[in-house]
Amino acid sequence: MNRPRLYKGMRDYLPQDMIPRELLLANIKKTFRRWGFVPVETPAIEYTEVLMGSKYGTEAQKLIYHIVHDDGLALRYDLTVPLARLYALNERDLPTPFKRYQIQPVWRAERAQPRQGRFREFYQCDVDIVGTDSRLSDAEIVAMTVDILSEIGFDKFTLEVNHRGILLGMVEEAGFPAEEEISVCQSLDKLDKIGEDGVRKELGKKGFSDGPVTRLFELTKGDLESFATFENQRISRGYAEMMEFFRLIERFPGAIDHIRFSPTLARGLDYYTGIIFESKADDLPHIGSLTGGGRYDGLIGTFLGRDVPAIGTTIGLDRILVAAEEKGLISVKETFTDVLFINFGDDVLGEVIELSGALREKGISCEIYLEDKKLKKQFSYADKKDIPFVVTIGTDEIAQKIARLKRMKTGEQYDIPFEELADRVFEMK
Amino acid sequence: MNRPRLYKGMRDYLPQDMIPRELLLANIKKTFRRWGFVPVETPAIEYTEVLMGSKYGTEAQKLIYHIVHDDGLALRYDLTVPLARLYALNERDLPTPFKRYQIQPVWRAERAQPRQGRFREFYQCDVDIVGTDSRLSDAEIVAMTVDILSEIGFDKFTLEVNHRGILLGMVEEAGFPAEEEISVCQSLDKLDKIGEDGVRKELGKKGFSDGPVTRLFELTKGDLESFATFENQRISRGYAEMMEFFRLIERFPGAIDHIRFSPTLARGLDYYTGIIFESKADDLPHIGSLTGGGRYDGLIGTFLGRDVPAIGTTIGLDRILVAAEEKGLISVKETFTDVLFINFGDDVLGEVIELSGALREKGISCEIYLEDKKLKKQFSYADKKDIPFVVTIGTDEIAQKIARLKRMKTGEQYDIPFEELADRVFEMK
Repeated sequence: MNRPRLYKGMRDYLPQDMIPRELLLANIKKTFRRWGFVPVETPAIEYTEVLMGSKYGTEAQKLIYHIVHDDGLALRYDLTVPLARLYALNERDLPTPFKRYQIQPVWRAERAQPRQGRFREFYQCDVDIVGTDSRLSDAEIVAMTVDILSEIGFDKFTLEVNHRGILLGMVEEAGFPAEEEISVCQSLDKLDKIGEDGVRKELGKKGFSDGPVTRLFELTKGDLESFATFENQRISRGYAEMMEFFRLIERFPGAIDHIRFSPTLARGLDYYTGIIFESKADDLPHIGSLTGGGRYDGLIGTFLGRDVPAIGTTIGLDRILVAAEEKGLISVKETFTDVLFINFGDDVLGEVIELSGALREKGISCEIYLEDKKLKKQFSYADKKDIPFVVTIGTDEIAQKIARLKRMKTGEQYDIPFEELADRVFEMK
Repeated sequence: MNRPRLYKGMRDYLPQDMIPRELLLANIKKTFRRWGFVPVETPAIEYTEVLMGSKYGTEAQKLIYHIVHDDGLALRYDLTVPLARLYALNERDLPTPFKRYQIQPVWRAERAQPRQGRFREFYQCDVDIVGTDSRLSDAEIVAMTVDILSEIGFDKFTLEVNHRGILLGMVEEAGFPAEEEISVCQSLDKLDKIGEDGVRKELGKKGFSDGPVTRLFELTKGDLESFATFENQRISRGYAEMMEFFRLIERFPGAIDHIRFSPTLARGLDYYTGIIFESKADDLPHIGSLTGGGRYDGLIGTFLGRDVPAIGTTIGLDRILVAAEEKGLISVKETFTDVLFINFGDDVLGEVIELSGALREKGISCEIYLEDKKLKKQFSYADKKDIPFVVTIGTDEIAQKIARLKRMKTGEQYDIPFEELADRVFEMK
């Protein structure tokens, strides 16, 4: 016998997991398409050097799954590096700008914590614009993110935006040494989780003196206008880009109410070069960010040898599913079936098969219980799968050409002539 | 610099590959749901012993991709063994019968022949019923396959059906030794490709004498009724099951015209135990089988220790795509975008952004060209992506609140007041 084990950190998506996912994905894809994005997919297996040569960082590189077959092969770790590789290979055949969405699993050999939602295989849903550094592309990605969250049904959510130039410029102005910028930002990124005291403590442990730390926190207290007068080149570029971004984003219907400038927003800074952003549901602070992304004008250049600007965001499917279910925006269904036909065996099966065909032609999802089992067992199947309607047809009903339709939720029953059944179910569902 | 290579046998799905796929998949999923099937997904990485302990056969086992991280891990090879593993792990939580569909990539380390459509990563689309050996479930899988092919738009296609009992019984009756049954069936399976002479030659090479070979071919010339009177147990069971199958399939609207009993149909016999079937487009014989499957009542037992009956079919997405494109049933699109707004820069951008929002609210896919580039470049972007409508709004149009809409295919132009644009495009597209 073969023991049916599941590797830790992997997960099966059972129907009750898949159906809300498919409904959510259909919703998100609809929005992607409405904004002119097209889908791509890339293979699971990439050359190790394609993944290693990129900017995942040394920690991330330890988490890549390698393939035995050829020691130069490994499993996809995210969707951004594959996009860069794909763009570099196909640049001549792709339109500029290239607006793509991509929804595929990625693999990371990290400690699995299924209860905290940390798996070794998980889906990413990315949407990016390659080939332009226009502020309109920055505004479009952000406005589309608002559209996606609104379309799913979220009303209270905030997209924090910042600019890498403002962030790094502040660190410079505060007096930190240039080579420590990333380290300081990584600590600042934890502000949400550990608060100002926590960040101060961490920066102290890293050996930084109070002076620059205090100056940094003073700078982060300002609004966008407070960065207007700096001579620091990175800050002034960041300020100008943010001002233009806000001028544009105001014109996208409904977007501006959800957007807030947040000078402490840091994100994983490895490859970001311009605007960065992250969204959260205001009333679900425990769930963390639902989406996040930014501009990365250097990554594709690592494949092409010349820089190609790009911006994108990840749509956090798993967290959005949790958030949407918590707010009752997505119903947890276990079936698409509208009607179960009870199976009373050979005497009636022919008529029942023909009726089920008539319902399907109307686009109604239906199934016949596949065995001539006890009525109770057949009804409990409908219960278990949450099928809304059950049709009972015995020999008497055949004689009268009448189907007995039961609405499971209420118990109401209707006797309906065969030829009207499809239309009646269509109206009632 | 990082060389952007793609591992042989892997493929990127560019937008022109993805869009027909997504449209085809939406169509197939619609049919799956109409027949009461629900989706599942399983992880890419399985324990090697889960895959090795199954009935892929020794040849197949050489093609499995192994993971370095832990030497007990490997990449999914098909969707049937993962289904069996999933069912064994979750039997108590799943309804009986369990009707699922699953659409995911699989990996095989075989020689890549991209021109012949043979890749090392490819998608499978499987639909199965677990937990019943009723003839109704046999008929349902076959009738649904007819529904899927019809829904895509195929009219002339044939589903050949046979029964493993009839096939193996014939081999026994012809006088072949029991231990050579599978080998004989594997040769017989090539009848389509190499003809009767070819099969005779191959069986001769395998060392079989003319007597049983000639008797076997006599037996395969009969229709279903010719198997009515055999005392061979496997044949009589096969005959009885096929008769009941045909009695039921006749009642499914439109199915019987596409179905033909074919006693030489063999398929990869490794785990099939009952009915087997395969479909082809009658007018596209060069494309090979579009779908194929059968009953496999033993496989799940290798995980559970007790047999659970099951039946299913693979829907051959790649071949169906080729066939559907050849017959003009699927249009090769590169975009979902309906409207491109020309970008004349800051003076008009605010109004254009607001209009694009109004169109999106109507469900119209639109994009603004993301840079203020030359008009020619912007129109050639619309051309390249096959965007059907282009809207031009300059400062004059802003003053009059009129948008100039061009239908790209015909060159017709319309001047339309801003507030009517969304409705007009919606009507025209």
